Amino acid sequence: MRETITVSYRVKNDERDLTKLAQSIAIGQTVGTWNELSNELKLQVSKHLAEVISIEDSQYTSLINIAFPIENFGSDLGALLTSIYGKISLLPKIKVENIEFSESYLKKFKGPKYGIKGIREILGKPEKPLLMSIFKPCLGLSAGELGTMFSTQAEAGIDLVKDDEILYDSSFDLMLKRLEACLKAKEKANSKTIYAINLTGKANEILDRAKELEKNGANCILFNYVSYGLPLLAALREAISIPIMGHPAFSGAMCGSSNGLSEDLILGKLPRIAGADFVLFPSPYGSLAWDKDITKNIQHSLIQKMYNIESAWPVPSAGIKSSMVKDIAIDFGEDIVINAGTAVWENKDGGKAGAREFIEEVEKLALSKLS
Amino acid sequence: MRETITVSYRVKNDERDLTKLAQSIAIGQTVGTWNELSNELKLQVSKHLAEVISIEDSQYTSLINIAFPIENFGSDLGALLTSIYGKISLLPKIKVENIEFSESYLKKFKGPKYGIKGIREILGKPEKPLLMSIFKPCLGLSAGELGTMFSTQAEAGIDLVKDDEILYDSSFDLMLKRLEACLKAKEKANSKTIYAINLTGKANEILDRAKELEKNGANCILFNYVSYGLPLLAALREAISIPIMGHPAFSGAMCGSSNGLSEDLILGKLPRIAGADFVLFPSPYGSLAWDKDITKNIQHSLIQKMYNIESAWPVPSAGIKSSMVKDIAIDFGEDIVINAGTAVWENKDGGKAGAREFIEEVEKLALSKLS
Repeated sequence: MRETITVSYRVKNDERDLTKLAQSIAIGQTVGTWNELSNELKLQVSKHLAEVISIEDSQYTSLINIAFPIENFGSDLGALLTSIYGKISLLPKIKVENIEFSESYLKKFKGPKYGIKGIREILGKPEKPLLMSIFKPCLGLSAGELGTMFSTQAEAGIDLVKDDEILYDSSFDLMLKRLEACLKAKEKANSKTIYAINLTGKANEILDRAKELEKNGANCILFNYVSYGLPLLAALREAISIPIMGHPAFSGAMCGSSNGLSEDLILGKLPRIAGADFVLFPSPYGSLAWDKDITKNIQHSLIQKMYNIESAWPVPSAGIKSSMVKDIAIDFGEDIVINAGTAVWENKDGGKAGAREFIEEVEKLALSKLS
Repeated sequence: MRETITVSYRVKNDERDLTKLAQSIAIGQTVGTWNELSNELKLQVSKHLAEVISIEDSQYTSLINIAFPIENFGSDLGALLTSIYGKISLLPKIKVENIEFSESYLKKFKGPKYGIKGIREILGKPEKPLLMSIFKPCLGLSAGELGTMFSTQAEAGIDLVKDDEILYDSSFDLMLKRLEACLKAKEKANSKTIYAINLTGKANEILDRAKELEKNGANCILFNYVSYGLPLLAALREAISIPIMGHPAFSGAMCGSSNGLSEDLILGKLPRIAGADFVLFPSPYGSLAWDKDITKNIQHSLIQKMYNIESAWPVPSAGIKSSMVKDIAIDFGEDIVINAGTAVWENKDGGKAGAREFIEEVEKLALSKLS
């Protein structure tokens, strides 16, 4: 039997004939043409033809489920996106809601190298949510200034510090200098704090830069994988052995509307199989609140059982304040990263006090039983 | 004076305060935080702060125009997308409608190596639209079979033949064999026909494969740059010296709705500055018809004057029949590629006759004056 994955398309009910549409996807996205082929040719190419599994009709939208042969794209994620949603993406109001990956497909991927278990081991934190803070501001600060900010966080006992995703380096040397400053601060504080350094560069530089950062002691890479392309995230996973943090920058371009991919695909399953150990996404609280259902779906897609693929850390983000820590933990459980951004630096007693405020909230969580 | 580009965001009018929203984009997408900074720090990071230029209010939507300092992203296209539409993309109903690139920004890019002029020179066709056909079916056919199909097109006098964008090769060897078969067919037919071979592979293989294809005589690369990521298209432009054809597969994920990028950005300006010599997009006719205004905007963005950047070939596509040739030429002028797909192979007298039918329609165009 041929190996497949099943793709579910959410389609708006309008004058379209769903059976015809489903067939046109199954043919148009695989062999390209079918009815006009000779029987001999049909036999020859049929192993590549996708199969309409079912159509689930409901009042306003319907779900078309189609099985695609894995042979059509292998482990090439660019080919996957082209194959399941290439030309079809250009039709109105049709969205990829889910992909049911099969075991044979997932075996082609390594997934997160560390995941939830591995990161807990690195940090020596077997339980409770982790705490992360972010450099704010970031653009325009020197390596020394950022190193000093890192010190305050490492000394306070923050688990992870990340660059802002907009921190762009006009030369690789600037990135190396920042890394050096933060690693020195980490050493001085004798802390295990992970530093997620933002990786930028041209596509032909990205992998070499990542390797060089690793060689220079980097212990985590922050990567805007939607802006740079999901295939580059998968290549990054192959190129380096340190944890990777995926950022949702630009993902709203492809999950906010009636076309594109669902939130739990582009911020969940896809970066997870590609190898992200952490994935950030908008939380249901704070400055960029998304529906709780959507965020729970993303969390689920990052931690649900997926054959050989490790779980990745859900990082509900944006505008998180210390007063929200309890709610976040109640809503999402303990295997999450609490991403404290601007709030840390707005504390009137400085960034260290700001970090401590969050840490105390997390420590309190031990008293109550988390879900 | 600092160098900037101006980004126009289309925002749905709702309860949002547009002035506040514009400020939050200008701050949030650059320095990250502002009001809370000391005056000293404000002075230090201000060169990175974006500036709200204007807000154009209208009945249902408004346009927010913001100037971003080039220093925030340089020539790194992944950083550009993160910078102008990173976190902001996660807000509802806000779309990047246009980017007004400045001369100093465009100077960082080479744009199409050949463009309209260069491709006409290669083909020895100083005027009239070019004609392209596509392998249908494609998946499941051997290199020999595809080579035979190529023969029919080269002998008929077709200017370009492209792989279907869904043609994925499970090994690079298959790609090389197909190239060899098509180049042999081209030689035998003594034709100048350009063969756009579909480039697939993992992100770390793409550039090496492209170079190897060029070394083996390839004269054009077809690339699904939206699936693989725009930054990889720019890197491809740097890696090879043969023409590049950009395919719109997956682009509907980010231009079909109220979030994302406009059609003429993702299928026009962006692939053009990244270096595509041709860009395919849905035509206003045929099986996947888009509004004529949208397609004309795309065409305009591919050929409008843009400082040092050459024009790229507009390729209105999908379901094109020979009966449409005249209308296409009237609507789009002569500097276009007519992309004859399935129709060529459905001709009852075979693919060569199918190609001739299109060629005759193009030849007739000489009789009437094109716009």
